[in-house]
Amino acid sequence: MPTEIPDIVISRLPVYLRALERLTQEGQEVTSSHELGRRLGISSAQIRKDLSHFGGFGKQGTGYKIAFLKEQLRQVLKVEREWNVVLVGAGDLGSAIAHYRGFSDRGFHIISVFDNSAEKIGRKLSTYDIEPMSQLDEFVTEHDIRIAMIAVPAEHAQQVADTLVKAGVKAILNYAPINLSVPEGVHVQYIDPVLHLQRMTYYLSE
Amino acid sequence: MPTEIPDIVISRLPVYLRALERLTQEGQEVTSSHELGRRLGISSAQIRKDLSHFGGFGKQGTGYKIAFLKEQLRQVLKVEREWNVVLVGAGDLGSAIAHYRGFSDRGFHIISVFDNSAEKIGRKLSTYDIEPMSQLDEFVTEHDIRIAMIAVPAEHAQQVADTLVKAGVKAILNYAPINLSVPEGVHVQYIDPVLHLQRMTYYLSE
Repeated sequence: MPTEIPDIVISRLPVYLRALERLTQEGQEVTSSHELGRRLGISSAQIRKDLSHFGGFGKQGTGYKIAFLKEQLRQVLKVEREWNVVLVGAGDLGSAIAHYRGFSDRGFHIISVFDNSAEKIGRKLSTYDIEPMSQLDEFVTEHDIRIAMIAVPAEHAQQVADTLVKAGVKAILNYAPINLSVPEGVHVQYIDPVLHLQRMTYYLSE
Repeated sequence: MPTEIPDIVISRLPVYLRALERLTQEGQEVTSSHELGRRLGISSAQIRKDLSHFGGFGKQGTGYKIAFLKEQLRQVLKVEREWNVVLVGAGDLGSAIAHYRGFSDRGFHIISVFDNSAEKIGRKLSTYDIEPMSQLDEFVTEHDIRIAMIAVPAEHAQQVADTLVKAGVKAILNYAPINLSVPEGVHVQYIDPVLHLQRMTYYLSE
């Protein structure tokens, strides 16, 4: 396994993995870079090049064995293991996240939810007890949590991120509509569906 | 206004717009490419280059007037107007989307929700009546809808997309964990938070 894979390649691997999982559900056992390319709107040359970073996945002409390729990608991405995650924010958005089953289905388990509202603390959100924000850092450290989701209002997001990073979190999925500043070695990904809509309206005629 | 702005530049404009809205909330009236760059983790040179596509935004040394720049970006992205949107899928995910207030706050109004489950049709989801899928194409055509959100299970998403495209939809925000195939001129953006988590786990040590 190589140690250095370009970030841009890493960002495409989950998309390949998802397509392979879909093919499995459809009963397929073998696929090709052409088929994957067609499904994903990525050139087959690009796919072959991306997958060649791991060496020996497919043979020219015989295609990729889906089960094997999935396993390799899962190992590379470290998603063959299960991850514990904390969710910060128990408002509308936090509630939607807590109820969404797609995370645990795919190996990401929310194990605790934090909020700073006195009204919410101690109440249930989905299957979780809402914990006070004051216990966030201790919880993260104690449970060796590396991944957190932030679903607090924009004006609190940076402060929450600072607390999480100080306590040892290395990966943040940020739903607050604001860019976070984090030290090197900490990764942030953003979910803001409105940005995606705005990326498309440019192309719409009046 | 130029007619041809590279897609990659367009994809960054909503991020700039969001940062500028944030600066306004914080009471600022002028900013610089350096300040924006620091906030967004993008080089100031990149920001100046991106914004230069529209000409005459900022003057060397005096910075950008935030109100003016926001207005320009909103016009370019066509988000100074309001957009009507249909939501397809009234399950867990559709429900979360219907309850999320961030869309209408930023000019995207869900005006109807569709589902194919006999149990759900006619019931309320947030403030919407759930309509039968059989009326989707007529509704889209009649109301001249250009934007749709798909929140149905993966196995139904392509079929829903086909119906929407045939009825005139040009922009799809797809929450189903599957890549869609659409004709040229139709835009798709994807929301799959698990992909974002998987993009980060690669970098986490065991």
